[in-house]
Amino acid sequence: MAALDLWVREVHRNQIAFAARATGCLWSGKSEYQTLDVVDTEAFGRVLLLDGLFMTTEKDEFIYHEMIAHTPLFTHPDPRRVLVIGGGDGGTAREAAKHPSVERVDLVEIDRLVVEKSRELLPSIACGLDHPKTSVHCEDGIQWVKTRPSAYDVVIIDSTDPIGPAVGLFSEAFYADCSRALTDGGVLAAQSESPFFNREEVRSIHRNLRAVFPRVHAYTAAIPTYPGGFWSFALASKGPDPLKGPAPERLAVFGDSLKYYNSEVHRAAFALPNYISRLLSE
Amino acid sequence: MAALDLWVREVHRNQIAFAARATGCLWSGKSEYQTLDVVDTEAFGRVLLLDGLFMTTEKDEFIYHEMIAHTPLFTHPDPRRVLVIGGGDGGTAREAAKHPSVERVDLVEIDRLVVEKSRELLPSIACGLDHPKTSVHCEDGIQWVKTRPSAYDVVIIDSTDPIGPAVGLFSEAFYADCSRALTDGGVLAAQSESPFFNREEVRSIHRNLRAVFPRVHAYTAAIPTYPGGFWSFALASKGPDPLKGPAPERLAVFGDSLKYYNSEVHRAAFALPNYISRLLSE
Repeated sequence: MAALDLWVREVHRNQIAFAARATGCLWSGKSEYQTLDVVDTEAFGRVLLLDGLFMTTEKDEFIYHEMIAHTPLFTHPDPRRVLVIGGGDGGTAREAAKHPSVERVDLVEIDRLVVEKSRELLPSIACGLDHPKTSVHCEDGIQWVKTRPSAYDVVIIDSTDPIGPAVGLFSEAFYADCSRALTDGGVLAAQSESPFFNREEVRSIHRNLRAVFPRVHAYTAAIPTYPGGFWSFALASKGPDPLKGPAPERLAVFGDSLKYYNSEVHRAAFALPNYISRLLSE
Repeated sequence: MAALDLWVREVHRNQIAFAARATGCLWSGKSEYQTLDVVDTEAFGRVLLLDGLFMTTEKDEFIYHEMIAHTPLFTHPDPRRVLVIGGGDGGTAREAAKHPSVERVDLVEIDRLVVEKSRELLPSIACGLDHPKTSVHCEDGIQWVKTRPSAYDVVIIDSTDPIGPAVGLFSEAFYADCSRALTDGGVLAAQSESPFFNREEVRSIHRNLRAVFPRVHAYTAAIPTYPGGFWSFALASKGPDPLKGPAPERLAVFGDSLKYYNSEVHRAAFALPNYISRLLSE
């Protein structure tokens, strides 16, 4: 008798697909913003999908979360107050809270269901939601940043793709509000899509950030469960130079707790293949 | 009426799958070594598959070929004679031949069908096979290196995965023969599988190379059509330091002809995420 042949599959732009063999569906439902599924897989452990797209997995989430959090946090010389917009799974907050200088992480996730189901089904990631430094606010990040001038040293935009509920998180107007929500010398990081498959989105994000911030850089990380396995981030700074990399004494505190990020990886992430630097200078 | 829904799919270890929408099958057949297919896709142009696995595609081949060729060639101070083992599609030879110092590229591909079908169906890659500097030999690379002491400045192992015809290309005995085929100060590069999915293979390749060469480094590149989108290479050197990167005056000759490789990318490729450096030091 044949066993159940269950796969979870993400189809990207109707052209490429990525799939993982599944051992079961733990939850499927719908919030007012999106569909949400948690599927168990052999290759990646539990996978969180929003609107059918792989958002995070137990086995490779460390790459995305370490790189979206530590790159801006080690760029800022003394980050105390951190805002995470999106990131309802808790992974980015978990990493931010590890920094001894960080006193408070405000996590503003519009979709309460992401927070609830992450707490229930992805505890190794969602532990960041319940860290003593973290305050979770199930509100609209676009509104949140409008009324908090100079409130944060670091803003991290841990959004879904620029479709549906997240589209406003990629606009120049939103980036300008983020800039006002940052202190002088503040730093912003944002996930900025696939440099291979989402060329127009990457270009647009950088164009919008450059209209607001004096320095904007792209950096990359290799994330197996995102389309093409290669992801870009944008780092926008009101002062600090992201290319310097982390202060050794601050990184030393982390011991061997990080699985991807290190001093060399921080700097290397900003070394862009020619096809990406050309895209950004077009 | 629904249109044909044609996809070409690679299943990796029965756990993950990658697929691309196809517009047609250009050729399918079998040599004495492996099956060979060429499929046309929307996302990647023409794709060459061996034993059902994506080997190279028109749209992303530049990443693999530039990184497997230029990293060792710019590490060697004056590469004149180059050996490519495998690489029957011609892309690695194409890149090697671009170096003004290179006088001769011997390409030793065991499977004549790969050479024939690449010439016929992948001309933008296979042009390397017909470059005046290139000599194509449809022979066994394992035997080839046994009888050519000190014949090459650079050896590039552009093999398939360590199963089937390529398994001998990952052994310590073969690496020792490659070392003897290299001149003093010679440099070897080899594709070395996925650092995320093929952990045991990556470890074994490095163990075997370290038994033969005084310095061995891993480096990486982001290749969308390989499992996980992230690939590792091994660089073994009898002298030159690969971490130094290319001499600026030699790289300048290439103008803007390269689409991935540059001086910063060369050095950044050796900056390993913690999970890879830990794997290699186990």
